[in-house]
Amino acid sequence: MSFELTILGSSAALPTAKRFPTAHLLHAGERFFLIDCGEGTQIRLRQYGINPSRIHHILISHLHGDHVFGLFGLLSTLGMMGRKVPLKLYGPKALEGFLSYYSKFFGPLPFELEFVISSENEDFVFENDNLSIRAIPLKHRTPAYGYLFREKKKLLNVRKEQIEAFGLGLEDLVKVKRGEDFVSKSGAIIPNSQLTLPPFHQRSYAYLSDTQFDPSLAAKVKGVDLLFHEATFSEKDKKLAAQTQHSTAAEAATLAKLAGVKKLLIGHFSSRYKEPLLLENEAKEVFDNTTGVNDGDIYSIPLERLSGE
Amino acid sequence: MSFELTILGSSAALPTAKRFPTAHLLHAGERFFLIDCGEGTQIRLRQYGINPSRIHHILISHLHGDHVFGLFGLLSTLGMMGRKVPLKLYGPKALEGFLSYYSKFFGPLPFELEFVISSENEDFVFENDNLSIRAIPLKHRTPAYGYLFREKKKLLNVRKEQIEAFGLGLEDLVKVKRGEDFVSKSGAIIPNSQLTLPPFHQRSYAYLSDTQFDPSLAAKVKGVDLLFHEATFSEKDKKLAAQTQHSTAAEAATLAKLAGVKKLLIGHFSSRYKEPLLLENEAKEVFDNTTGVNDGDIYSIPLERLSGE
Repeated sequence: MSFELTILGSSAALPTAKRFPTAHLLHAGERFFLIDCGEGTQIRLRQYGINPSRIHHILISHLHGDHVFGLFGLLSTLGMMGRKVPLKLYGPKALEGFLSYYSKFFGPLPFELEFVISSENEDFVFENDNLSIRAIPLKHRTPAYGYLFREKKKLLNVRKEQIEAFGLGLEDLVKVKRGEDFVSKSGAIIPNSQLTLPPFHQRSYAYLSDTQFDPSLAAKVKGVDLLFHEATFSEKDKKLAAQTQHSTAAEAATLAKLAGVKKLLIGHFSSRYKEPLLLENEAKEVFDNTTGVNDGDIYSIPLERLSGE
Repeated sequence: MSFELTILGSSAALPTAKRFPTAHLLHAGERFFLIDCGEGTQIRLRQYGINPSRIHHILISHLHGDHVFGLFGLLSTLGMMGRKVPLKLYGPKALEGFLSYYSKFFGPLPFELEFVISSENEDFVFENDNLSIRAIPLKHRTPAYGYLFREKKKLLNVRKEQIEAFGLGLEDLVKVKRGEDFVSKSGAIIPNSQLTLPPFHQRSYAYLSDTQFDPSLAAKVKGVDLLFHEATFSEKDKKLAAQTQHSTAAEAATLAKLAGVKKLLIGHFSSRYKEPLLLENEAKEVFDNTTGVNDGDIYSIPLERLSGE
């Protein structure tokens, strides 16, 4: 079961020769979730060998061009590739209006667009047996949402040798998989931990872009494995960050520290910085486990059993 | 004085890892003319070291996504780069409606868009002292126009040694530069060719995309230095070409032959052909001086004096 993030675009509003505008792809379980869709996203998918038809969910943070200008091209391509199954789109209310414009100029798409509106109440916008996605309101110049992806608790795996040893029946197994202890016919209580393998860690990824620094976000992304936080500006341009409701690299790192995340990714770098390593270094002074992302980077979180529990 | 074409995108509707959707840039004199603007055009400009702010004219062939989906991103970038001067846009009537949508969702641009509507009467859509551009109606599934760029006739250069030899005055010079012979005080007629350097060849570029094969186009692009003609399909998919109102490579070459152009460029290759060399070869069987274009190609036509005239 993969839980793998691919960076498709890492620039801020102005793309550069090497950085396309923002787009991330999370491959979680068997599903591909596209997060934002800057201009050229479909080209990056091709370049990185990802079939766009495998995407069934597109989550949009906000309606600024550098996060959505790739949508028309991607939808058009999906149509030409013969897509018939619906595509789910998540985002602020304006997203539906923006996309309604597609058919007006470029004709009907051969598949349905299903909209899920992200709202202020931090709802789950997606939930299945393996994964939940929560929308997190951000503070930007237009309604904006981050997204928190978290694996669901899975049923426990029962140790095969114990099934025989304790004579577990089908009904017992269902209970033990859920985490219950086993009571034998003689009345002995066998603790669940003795019967099962340690549970899998529930992997998580939080995407917070675009936003001004907001310490209240820390509680919402507490302890995630991977946090992407925008870091448009350097500390010396802190004023500009505040004016435009963006964050500095140090602010992104402060959020990561407050939230106690395992790893911080920063991106959405302003094209004014010729060497974004500067921003990575500023962040690292606050939160060491920080990486400045580049287009094409892949961050994979292995499926691991918790130990000592 | 440069007359140089840069291929920014050479794919048909579906981009590939190496081919972006259609966009060409003609640098003629001191001006940059962008011809079509597929998704990622602004990224290609960055990659090829061309400052997008230098573009003052954008010519759009037709309102299919693979020719216009880069417009929103480019306009947005020009605005963020501080553009104040107007941008001229040429194309079918629907172009204005399409772009009016930009401000509705992404706010006003800090510069004006001036529209020149291409129409069926093959007008000059642009004309200055150096260059004229003519719109050429094409046959496609939606109103579509090709564009013919041709340098204007320049004033002749008078041979310096002859000015003194024949005692040419300022008024005489004006006439001689226009091509007139000189009549000396003694009544002797000095032929213009004896007084002036041979004139410069008027360089020309014609862009015909997207279109079905239309032999009547040959008269309109007769003898151009460089003809770009779309070649979406191979001969074996001729039926598909007819159905979709596109051309095969051999049809593009037939047009080039009929028109007696100097060099043919083909592109807008369907992504179904893994090796577009196939299309180039099919075209070469009909018209030898054919090149299948790739993103990043530059075709420069030198400024040369006509000889033997």
